[in-house]
Amino acid sequence: MNDETVLLGHGSGGTMMKRIIDEVFAASYGSEELAQGDDAAVLPAPASGERLAFSTDTFVVTPHFFPGGNIGRLAVCGTVNDVATSGARVKYLSVGMVLEEGFPMDDLRRICATIAETAREAGVHVVTGDTKVVNRGHGDGIYINTAGVGLIPAERSLSGAHCKPGDKVLVSGTMGDHGIAIMTQREGLSFAAPVESDAAPLNHLIAEVLEAAPETRCFRDPTRGGLASTLNEFAAQSGVDIVVREDDVPVKDVVRGACDMLGYDVLQVANEGKMVCVVPADQVDAALAAMRANKYGADAAIIGEVAEASPERGPKVYLQTGFGSKRILDMLVGEQLPRIC
Amino acid sequence: MNDETVLLGHGSGGTMMKRIIDEVFAASYGSEELAQGDDAAVLPAPASGERLAFSTDTFVVTPHFFPGGNIGRLAVCGTVNDVATSGARVKYLSVGMVLEEGFPMDDLRRICATIAETAREAGVHVVTGDTKVVNRGHGDGIYINTAGVGLIPAERSLSGAHCKPGDKVLVSGTMGDHGIAIMTQREGLSFAAPVESDAAPLNHLIAEVLEAAPETRCFRDPTRGGLASTLNEFAAQSGVDIVVREDDVPVKDVVRGACDMLGYDVLQVANEGKMVCVVPADQVDAALAAMRANKYGADAAIIGEVAEASPERGPKVYLQTGFGSKRILDMLVGEQLPRIC
Repeated sequence: MNDETVLLGHGSGGTMMKRIIDEVFAASYGSEELAQGDDAAVLPAPASGERLAFSTDTFVVTPHFFPGGNIGRLAVCGTVNDVATSGARVKYLSVGMVLEEGFPMDDLRRICATIAETAREAGVHVVTGDTKVVNRGHGDGIYINTAGVGLIPAERSLSGAHCKPGDKVLVSGTMGDHGIAIMTQREGLSFAAPVESDAAPLNHLIAEVLEAAPETRCFRDPTRGGLASTLNEFAAQSGVDIVVREDDVPVKDVVRGACDMLGYDVLQVANEGKMVCVVPADQVDAALAAMRANKYGADAAIIGEVAEASPERGPKVYLQTGFGSKRILDMLVGEQLPRIC
Repeated sequence: MNDETVLLGHGSGGTMMKRIIDEVFAASYGSEELAQGDDAAVLPAPASGERLAFSTDTFVVTPHFFPGGNIGRLAVCGTVNDVATSGARVKYLSVGMVLEEGFPMDDLRRICATIAETAREAGVHVVTGDTKVVNRGHGDGIYINTAGVGLIPAERSLSGAHCKPGDKVLVSGTMGDHGIAIMTQREGLSFAAPVESDAAPLNHLIAEVLEAAPETRCFRDPTRGGLASTLNEFAAQSGVDIVVREDDVPVKDVVRGACDMLGYDVLQVANEGKMVCVVPADQVDAALAAMRANKYGADAAIIGEVAEASPERGPKVYLQTGFGSKRILDMLVGEQLPRIC
């Protein structure tokens, strides 16, 4: 295809659309199902008793390319990780593109190559897709929606509602890397050490933790709203308190420095390649070892525990500081860093 | 919620996002699965042998409200219809919103109410969702992605690759209504009779046709690119010719008039509530009767048949005109009416 930029005709339903699908999308992340050319992908019957996991995410991040990845890597990782938190084997992805007229075709090819590479790493297949083109000046270059389908083994049941007092809380690595990477790139800031996005598919890490610690209560990836939002969601879903030791939360020095300088709470900054998980105390060492054995879990740490909620105050998340004080860790109110995913 | 417009904070992952989800999205199209609050919806195990059907579509139509519907109705119908073409029972939808800062909250509520109403009509559940907010001046008020999952009975196999010479081609009603409705609304044109979009969920109609004509080869909804694109896709997938009698294709007078005036080929104009289907000759009367018995199929008609492709020319679609001449009906090249879905 010779077109150097995306044209309205690429979203027409006609021959130009067929060409961008064949020469850009299918050429990078094509699959047998995508090649069938019907309006819906037809996928094999699950094994008996396997339930379905289904999730979706749209990606509107700017800039589209950033240290550690691009919007295509995010689009695969975000949905793979959401589906994987259910304990499912993540199998199938849809990719829906909203392209702006004039978007450089080379950028689109790079993004599609990253989608293909990240899907391969995660072991998922892109089986269905959609392409829309909006007029120049609308949209924002590229938005990508992905939806994902996974299969949950019959005996498995994970939920943020399953946390119990005495359980331990783990994170798979350092907090805040993705949000700060996007922000420094967007604002043209530079630090002594570069900050890279952590975007990564964590479905294999989750499977390894579940193998080592089968009673794990739940996983969640602390994306928008950061660790603070995720823990508050768990506390509310389970009706429990969660107590986090601030000093035990892994944070890179450069990220902490950037947050201090800019007035962000690192616990409210987005991650795209980290998991929070809650595990019964007797399996926490096994879970931690499994995380650390995975390349995306080298900095994993136990950061706190689940406690009974006080009847007066209801479920809360508390942060124990290094000075021995304890404060409520709230969800983010309003918006701190827009368009980070 | 008192906010009169969408704010960046509604996409933050924090308390404002929780509020728009609870008070706008869940309040209109909420479901048990959506209420669970985990990152992936967990859905029951399919019956033994049932395969999965999976499809996605993003909707970027402008204007957002038009005669016969709005972007919310399109977003449900488009994906329901795509999944249903596989012969699946359509079960689950995801809804991913990209909202522009400043979008009127009342418009969002109306769109969400329509999503709820259309999903109810189709008998599908919205089980998972995502909300992104982009800065004012980006995006275009609202874009909606939906993905859908359905379950295909073990013995069923429909595909555009299954057409055979001698098969008959049916359409479920008049062509071109949706595209012309959008265009007249966008351009402020008015005709003697108003043109309404045909947007409709056709999964029940498909089930009724399959009941009456179980050997049906395939269904497809002729959206972007219109009937011409759909028939060319079938011809290419099956390696056959398709011959259509122009006079037998149902078209409303007002739509034909608008197309003549504007220089559009009605067979390349989008529909959002019509099905093309290919049926063996001995079941065509049963299929037609089933279509006509459904409220969305009153104008159904047999419009042509499948023939052997000529070895020299390869698979083509031919249009037989009222004057007895025969011309090749090509796919749309380029773009005729952007942003119609």
